[in-house]
Amino acid sequence: MRIDLNADVGESFGTFTIGEDEKLFLNITSANIACGFHAGDFNVMQTTVKRAKKHGIAVGAHPGYPDLQGFGRRELKMTPSEIYNSIVYQIGALKQFCKIHGVPLQHVKPHGALYNAAAENQTVAEAVAKAVHDAAPDSILFGLCNSELVEAGKKLGLKTASEAFADRRYTDEGKLTSRLMPNAVLKTYEEILDQVREIVFRQRVKTASGNWVSLKADTICFHGDGQNVAHHTALVREALEKEGVQVLQVGITDGSSI
Amino acid sequence: MRIDLNADVGESFGTFTIGEDEKLFLNITSANIACGFHAGDFNVMQTTVKRAKKHGIAVGAHPGYPDLQGFGRRELKMTPSEIYNSIVYQIGALKQFCKIHGVPLQHVKPHGALYNAAAENQTVAEAVAKAVHDAAPDSILFGLCNSELVEAGKKLGLKTASEAFADRRYTDEGKLTSRLMPNAVLKTYEEILDQVREIVFRQRVKTASGNWVSLKADTICFHGDGQNVAHHTALVREALEKEGVQVLQVGITDGSSI
Amino acid sequence: MRIDLNADVGESFGTFTIGEDEKLFLNITSANIACGFHAGDFNVMQTTVKRAKKHGIAVGAHPGYPDLQGFGRRELKMTPSEIYNSIVYQIGALKQFCKIHGVPLQHVKPHGALYNAAAENQTVAEAVAKAVHDAAPDSILFGLCNSELVEAGKKLGLKTASEAFADRRYTDEGKLTSRLMPNAVLKTYEEILDQVREIVFRQRVKTASGNWVSLKADTICFHGDGQNVAHHTALVREALEKEGVQVLQVGITDGSSI
Amino acid sequence: MRIDLNADVGESFGTFTIGEDEKLFLNITSANIACGFHAGDFNVMQTTVKRAKKHGIAVGAHPGYPDLQGFGRRELKMTPSEIYNSIVYQIGALKQFCKIHGVPLQHVKPHGALYNAAAENQTVAEAVAKAVHDAAPDSILFGLCNSELVEAGKKLGLKTASEAFADRRYTDEGKLTSRLMPNAVLKTYEEILDQVREIVFRQRVKTASGNWVSLKADTICFHGDGQNVAHHTALVREALEKEGVQVLQVGITDGSSI
Repeated sequence: MRIDLNADVGESFGTFTIGEDEKLFLNITSANIACGFHAGDFNVMQTTVKRAKKHGIAVGAHPGYPDLQGFGRRELKMTPSEIYNSIVYQIGALKQFCKIHGVPLQHVKPHGALYNAAAENQTVAEAVAKAVHDAAPDSILFGLCNSELVEAGKKLGLKTASEAFADRRYTDEGKLTSRLMPNAVLKTYEEILDQVREIVFRQRVKTASGNWVSLKADTICFHGDGQNVAHHTALVREALEKEGVQVLQVGITDGSSI
Repeated sequence: MRIDLNADVGESFGTFTIGEDEKLFLNITSANIACGFHAGDFNVMQTTVKRAKKHGIAVGAHPGYPDLQGFGRRELKMTPSEIYNSIVYQIGALKQFCKIHGVPLQHVKPHGALYNAAAENQTVAEAVAKAVHDAAPDSILFGLCNSELVEAGKKLGLKTASEAFADRRYTDEGKLTSRLMPNAVLKTYEEILDQVREIVFRQRVKTASGNWVSLKADTICFHGDGQNVAHHTALVREALEKEGVQVLQVGITDGSSI
Repeated sequence: MRIDLNADVGESFGTFTIGEDEKLFLNITSANIACGFHAGDFNVMQTTVKRAKKHGIAVGAHPGYPDLQGFGRRELKMTPSEIYNSIVYQIGALKQFCKIHGVPLQHVKPHGALYNAAAENQTVAEAVAKAVHDAAPDSILFGLCNSELVEAGKKLGLKTASEAFADRRYTDEGKLTSRLMPNAVLKTYEEILDQVREIVFRQRVKTASGNWVSLKADTICFHGDGQNVAHHTALVREALEKEGVQVLQVGITDGSSI
Repeated sequence: MRIDLNADVGESFGTFTIGEDEKLFLNITSANIACGFHAGDFNVMQTTVKRAKKHGIAVGAHPGYPDLQGFGRRELKMTPSEIYNSIVYQIGALKQFCKIHGVPLQHVKPHGALYNAAAENQTVAEAVAKAVHDAAPDSILFGLCNSELVEAGKKLGLKTASEAFADRRYTDEGKLTSRLMPNAVLKTYEEILDQVREIVFRQRVKTASGNWVSLKADTICFHGDGQNVAHHTALVREALEKEGVQVLQVGITDGSSI
């Protein structure tokens, strides 16, 4: 029984500070680093890759729509080739910081509205997967469990990891409820731990309407900008490890570190 | 007797079109491709690298200040580490498009106000050279003849190329006259050819005050946004070749293509 | 028989030049001036308002989505309050240049994807109309003929003007065909004049499928970035005036100039 | 004995939150509201003007350089006409929110590197003052005590207010020490109160080298992004009022509210 814990980090921009990266780095295993489009900038990327290395956290690129004000959470109708090019650009920029620090790029995970579009829209999914295939063929594509994105990645022969969310409410279709809905986000540690335990031990989550939907996750996301996220992550990790779950980077296979 | 001819290209942004790239590509040997900060965007970079490859033109990264409205021509007081990080980011992004198209990154040339600051300010020059050293150690650093930038590059063991300008007026100190001055830019083909011939055959230019200043150039820049630049470049290349000058990518050594 | 001719102008940004504003100003009667979000900047706005005044052209604000790279033509899912605030901001900025030059703000016309969303989506239309109502209550709201936007403006008691397009192909529902479709844009002068004459004299247009759809326009738009648009506008105006049509700013009523 | 207390507010951007505006509004009398260039956005401006009105705080425009990443604190070499146009734009945008909420624009205070440039460079000072003169002739221009900016404002017949800083160390020339210097910012409440009391009661500050420099301030600035700034402001206001100082908006004259 093993699981990877990931979080979005490196989302500060200039003087604008977001998140509790330093604390999160104590407990997550994979870091999704913003690439300067929806959040992050070249200084923050430099610092964040360095910090991830120091803590032994696997680095991932976290490309998003070019919409800083909307934090990449507003739908933006880009064409497939625009999406492809924008992701190639962002991966390239982050990889350069990885090279300078001598760390591999473990994974790529699209952000926000781009993540959601890639989960449900086959054309977007294929554009994202193609960009990862061409720009980071050895990395793992992170996508929502049972999504078009994971499907598109597999078709191209990419390694993929299916992701579940620690603090997001699910619909009966196994999708995330919109952030515009009340109760879209789980707030208390108890709710979050319950959901994580169901995901890890029983491959399922309870939906907004009280039903169960099954999903098989390789990695669980904690939101970098959630309230008390670092604290919750620490408690969840501790609880999981007490129950014998191995908390490990998804990129580690056969005992060898990435 | 040989010379490289370079130009700034890929400077369009979204719907905003600048330059005559297609025509320039018929006669230049090295292309300085904007990286999305002062000009260019991820779509334009994709297209421009592809086009350079088609024409057999050597690709270079052309990083600038993050100032699209000012086209990277306004001084911006960034710290050395900000400059370093911003150049690492831009080089990484462009290199990714190079990899996708299977072309090497021949060179890096900073743009506009960053180029000027790196020519005269040792601290800026060292930040730029360090970024190139760390992000593209095999590429050639382009800098103004006799500049701090070329010096800083050499100190770090980088290959460097000294650059002269086909259409910019020089001061008696061998620097470029400010664009804010009248006559900073040579307009007619005759003036431009005269200046290029002096650079190639006699390693010197006539300054704004009518004196001669010596400079030894490996590559000559034609401004991508100059008037009739493509036409002038074609005529100059033809004239040089008639006089037996080899017009070759600066990265080509010992007959082997880069 | 009278008609207003409008065009999008002031769409240059920094060094990036778009459009033939100077020539367009010889023949249009109303100018839709970009406000710095999808195009234009504070320098261009200053210059364009001044130029419009010189030519006696009525000035309008042309607010768009905050998406310079996409030129405001990509759908962006902003909330109604974001749309409202963004339009208040843009109108305020342009009005300041109007005040400095002593010209009134005749009209407000949303741009691109925002224009299209406001034509079809009642919620967006109401947000746009409310912003105009609160920020420029005396100005005229320009919207597509038979659109939600014109409807929303009327409900709030705003003056409205219904707009038709000189060079865009219509659907049988009286909407604009998508720019992604072939033949979405009329190219030749003959086609454009035919369409304008049908609009002015018979209150109808021929649709992509060859049918007629009726529309009653107060103003006709010529695209500032269309090919030969200034030339076409001049010819159309001349042709209309020969047939006795008064080409007048929509804001002029009862012989009094705005 | 009276004094105005001002602070920079409305500096959040999208999801990026900065400052303790709600708490600051309990004790300041004048609010400098960011206008979307170095910080702030149209949503934040809407909210902040509304909040200032609710608390009876006088509203001011706080225009800065168009440099969100650098928070307007990096020097940017804009021409005088660029500076003029950029300030007209920002004032216009903010004034529109003021009009919607029925509050006057009490003052204009440039931000960061623009504030510093306008303090020392006569050309910049004149461009800023001219913009205020043309766009908000009835408002008060805030500038550093004894600065070029206050001088330029007076020459144009503007009302001006001279500003001192509660928590910034001064040089013997009465200028602010650079933020890059250690001890540029006073950290403890005791130091801050001491400096404010010297300013209010003795029209002087102690400089970095221990000397006294005289300055006559109409308003004192508390930095919105300083540590514990809201707490310090509350304590300072309480202390001043205990000593009989009237803490009043600078725009209030003869007992009448602005």
